[in-house]
Amino acid sequence: MRLVTFGVANSLDNFIARVDGAVDWLVWDDEVAAITKEFWKTIDTVVMGRKTYEVAARSGSGAYPGAKNYVFSRTLEQPQGKEVEVISQDAVEFVRQLKKQAGKGICAMGGGELACSLFQAGLIDQVGVNIQPVMLGSGIPLFHDMKRQLNLELLEHKRLMNGGVFIFYRVKSIARPDDAN
Amino acid sequence: MRLVTFGVANSLDNFIARVDGAVDWLVWDDEVAAITKEFWKTIDTVVMGRKTYEVAARSGSGAYPGAKNYVFSRTLEQPQGKEVEVISQDAVEFVRQLKKQAGKGICAMGGGELACSLFQAGLIDQVGVNIQPVMLGSGIPLFHDMKRQLNLELLEHKRLMNGGVFIFYRVKSIARPDDAN
Repeated sequence: MRLVTFGVANSLDNFIARVDGAVDWLVWDDEVAAITKEFWKTIDTVVMGRKTYEVAARSGSGAYPGAKNYVFSRTLEQPQGKEVEVISQDAVEFVRQLKKQAGKGICAMGGGELACSLFQAGLIDQVGVNIQPVMLGSGIPLFHDMKRQLNLELLEHKRLMNGGVFIFYRVKSIARPDDAN
Repeated sequence: MRLVTFGVANSLDNFIARVDGAVDWLVWDDEVAAITKEFWKTIDTVVMGRKTYEVAARSGSGAYPGAKNYVFSRTLEQPQGKEVEVISQDAVEFVRQLKKQAGKGICAMGGGELACSLFQAGLIDQVGVNIQPVMLGSGIPLFHDMKRQLNLELLEHKRLMNGGVFIFYRVKSIARPDDAN
């Protein structure tokens, strides 16, 4: 079974962007680039929600290069070219099937809305957060309320040179599919 | 000037308690006790909001022993005995004056409502979080929206044996008093 990882950079007060979507406060440096590069070797597929895609698409194709990119949306039209594939069916069921296929890891990108559905359905196996040394005060929240508790196992933690802290967990309690509702 | 520290244990999704106030998910062990004991040597005063006091008072006097305890509330009557002192005046102004007095450090306890006011007023100097390896899904939030951004400096981080991560920051941008509104 392929592993699904939700990875994100957040503020200490758990925002992923300012209210207007700005991420100017994120520090990107060689150390973060190296961690990201290592992680990308383990995956070949990216899943994201429409909002995340639209933010990414403002500055390019919206696709993460070198990976198969799926965007979940019932309203978005399939963009020209084949860089991303728009999936109008239920994201949870789609990812459940994706995990059964052969391949490398799957990365759930972006905000917490898609991740929340996948967490609730027990489909996320690993969570990595890069906590930046800032409290934004307001913004787009990382986590949304879920109907269930997830227990985590700390796998890795690292103090970053930029003042951030990278923490990586395994989700211990993956639900059975019929346990998600 | 006395330092004010806000210290708390939270879930990865930034709750400090379940919806009903329960903290059964918190792990207390010798390592956490030792960190807490070292910290308590640096303080002699505790400030807390009414809700935090009422939760603590359910299982005792509500006071932290060995420290001067202040509870901010406009409605609470002064309890008998002298274990806590109820302050009906504005918490921000009270803490601002407290910092100018001689003494050891001050600890802001409990939930995020009092802390939010103190953060916004630039009165909190240090933040310590003990992130427990759990996503509760719902509960009482740690952080509340603020009107300002606070930049932090990572001072310390430690992987705990119980799977938690302890992170300690200095608040870099303390506002001038007239910058808080």
